[in-house]
Amino acid sequence: MLPNLTIDSRRLWEMLMETARIGGTPKGGIRRLTLSDEDRRVRDWFRAECEALGCTVHVDTAGNMIAIRPGKDNARKPIAMGSHLDTQPTGGKFDGVLGVLAGLEAMKTLHQAGYETQSPIALINWTNEEGARFSPSMVGSAVYAGALTQAQMDACKDRDGVTQGEALDAIGYRGTVAPGAIGFAAYFELHIEQGPVLEEEGRTIGIVNGVQAIKWFTGQITGRESHAGTTPMTYRRDALSAFAEAVVAMRQIALDHAPGMATVGIVSAEPGSPNIVPGTVKFTLDTRHPSNEVLGEMVAKIRTAFEEAATRHKGVADIQPLQDSPAQPFDATCVAMVRQAAEKIGVSARELTSGAGHDAMYTARVCPSAMIFVPCAEGLSHNETESATQDDCAAGAQVLLEAVLAYDARG
Amino acid sequence: MLPNLTIDSRRLWEMLMETARIGGTPKGGIRRLTLSDEDRRVRDWFRAECEALGCTVHVDTAGNMIAIRPGKDNARKPIAMGSHLDTQPTGGKFDGVLGVLAGLEAMKTLHQAGYETQSPIALINWTNEEGARFSPSMVGSAVYAGALTQAQMDACKDRDGVTQGEALDAIGYRGTVAPGAIGFAAYFELHIEQGPVLEEEGRTIGIVNGVQAIKWFTGQITGRESHAGTTPMTYRRDALSAFAEAVVAMRQIALDHAPGMATVGIVSAEPGSPNIVPGTVKFTLDTRHPSNEVLGEMVAKIRTAFEEAATRHKGVADIQPLQDSPAQPFDATCVAMVRQAAEKIGVSARELTSGAGHDAMYTARVCPSAMIFVPCAEGLSHNETESATQDDCAAGAQVLLEAVLAYDARG
Repeated sequence: MLPNLTIDSRRLWEMLMETARIGGTPKGGIRRLTLSDEDRRVRDWFRAECEALGCTVHVDTAGNMIAIRPGKDNARKPIAMGSHLDTQPTGGKFDGVLGVLAGLEAMKTLHQAGYETQSPIALINWTNEEGARFSPSMVGSAVYAGALTQAQMDACKDRDGVTQGEALDAIGYRGTVAPGAIGFAAYFELHIEQGPVLEEEGRTIGIVNGVQAIKWFTGQITGRESHAGTTPMTYRRDALSAFAEAVVAMRQIALDHAPGMATVGIVSAEPGSPNIVPGTVKFTLDTRHPSNEVLGEMVAKIRTAFEEAATRHKGVADIQPLQDSPAQPFDATCVAMVRQAAEKIGVSARELTSGAGHDAMYTARVCPSAMIFVPCAEGLSHNETESATQDDCAAGAQVLLEAVLAYDARG
Repeated sequence: MLPNLTIDSRRLWEMLMETARIGGTPKGGIRRLTLSDEDRRVRDWFRAECEALGCTVHVDTAGNMIAIRPGKDNARKPIAMGSHLDTQPTGGKFDGVLGVLAGLEAMKTLHQAGYETQSPIALINWTNEEGARFSPSMVGSAVYAGALTQAQMDACKDRDGVTQGEALDAIGYRGTVAPGAIGFAAYFELHIEQGPVLEEEGRTIGIVNGVQAIKWFTGQITGRESHAGTTPMTYRRDALSAFAEAVVAMRQIALDHAPGMATVGIVSAEPGSPNIVPGTVKFTLDTRHPSNEVLGEMVAKIRTAFEEAATRHKGVADIQPLQDSPAQPFDATCVAMVRQAAEKIGVSARELTSGAGHDAMYTARVCPSAMIFVPCAEGLSHNETESATQDDCAAGAQVLLEAVLAYDARG
């Protein structure tokens, strides 16, 4: 039933290396901040490549670029692939870029074979996935899915006071299409894992079944500052000892709720002198779990652990919500197609829940979506030394193409 | 055998309140940084008060002021009292000041009674005890005891680039006496406890038997930074989790070696982002114990605790010495005289080891020394709200006078 089309591993790799020069850094990474001149250059390149394949490139008012290759029945909604071409300030060559270029390679493979799909096929470059220049992240897909308004997107300012709207106009990528006006039958996104699981288990493909729930908090433990040389251990109200006990408990709670995660990424002790017992400890708390319900339980236990630890040290803990992103499961049919595609090409695969947010998190709100992960060396990402192999990138691109073709074949 | 002389509680309190206006802050504290104009003014006041009592005021090249009241036998070395009149930038009214003014009150009591001691009696205002403007602290007594050279003292710079030598010259308190040239038969120093023990136990006098050993370290745990959303708990090399476990173990080690103390006062996690598992944690470590030997054992165990915790998280710990101050026991005879003085005036007393450094730590290297502590509210010090009661200050001054008279009486 399905055609046997094989993507060109070397052509994909050469595109990755070629576009990596647009904003390329001496350490081998990419600095291609959203809506910068480098972003404009890679967008121009992307538009030209798509148009050379006979695609029509639509740009919406959020700057999202949607290249569409016609199918036999253009009344059908396109089946979409995509990711983002913007990077972190010291980003790598694969985060986001791989998803777009693998989609482009799939388009080239279809074009070269003269293969006509039933549905049109779309390839998307989402605006500002990284959120590094303008916060928040995943802006283009959020506006597409109606989670953010165009006005909210336009109003964000970078550190120089330039608004996102001004930057979009300045590079000439403010299109006329209303975000969301072009609907998709389904959306598939290939991305590097940005975690260590596939590499550690020696697998090639992650079948991503959703994005986990994320809750962020800011925390503070208040005890009493005192002299480190004159305050016996038993008289102290040491905010840092309370914090340490809570962090140990927090880790165990996360382990007990595997695959839950809990992380303190920022911590400071005040007043911050070697010979003063800290009276205050401030910290951030990042908690995640694929299930909203289990994450709620985890957070309640972690909160209690901080409160109990503070009480043991005659202090108080205050944990305040900072950000709350519910779990976003992916579409079962799309996920099944990714699984079958991995089986078809005969690579080792496992199901994963994405730990990080991706554009597919927003597309999943408006159309059936799924993601494909490939390994990256040591799980390292947002780093100029980010690395993935040519074979793994090619396998990911092949699975992407197979999944799209399978979705197309269901009619 | 000993005379019955009673210090004037009210006169002492009025001197405390009067001098507190020199550099007084709106919040009721004192800002009288060493060798500042405020320091010059309080020094001028101190010199005039001592001279009015018939004392000769000697100033050494380190700016230490030594007021001497003649005795019957002026061939004998003086029995000394003293402390410091400089304060922290936002210091209280008692830290240091009480020891000097209680000595002055003792001098006034002797003068008013026309009492002639066997030995001359000295009262010292040490230069730069606080170390707040010029580091290190306890400089005047260190130079007096030969632990620092005059050149080392002179070379220290404040934040404005002014050297300690220049500041000493500028306020006109560079004397001609060689530091250490005036020897003492004994040295007694009254000070607020700066800790909570006396207040918590409802005692008036601390009989200080020495200054505990102090070892400072800087520490670092290195794991690997990774994404908080994509790195499962079991794959992490979380420097902060290792740190937390080590801090919990460290506290238990200190408790197991009571009255040992161990404190982390400064901590930072790098790179310092809510969604990045810290790859590096940097911290300071302050460890103390009255016994050098026990402190050595404590430190070895704490070091092992950090190393083992790091290893459990596939990281490494590096603990580097920053400062090492061995225990300084006080003279048994001087300590006994403080104990007997407290018994004589019938107040509740207990033996203590000083947790903090004091000028008496240096005098103890060159003459028999001891200290007397009185309670301060909530153990709070180096703070504008530092507080001690008139009765406790008076009791401390009376014990100081009694101890000096007892030492004088042994001939």
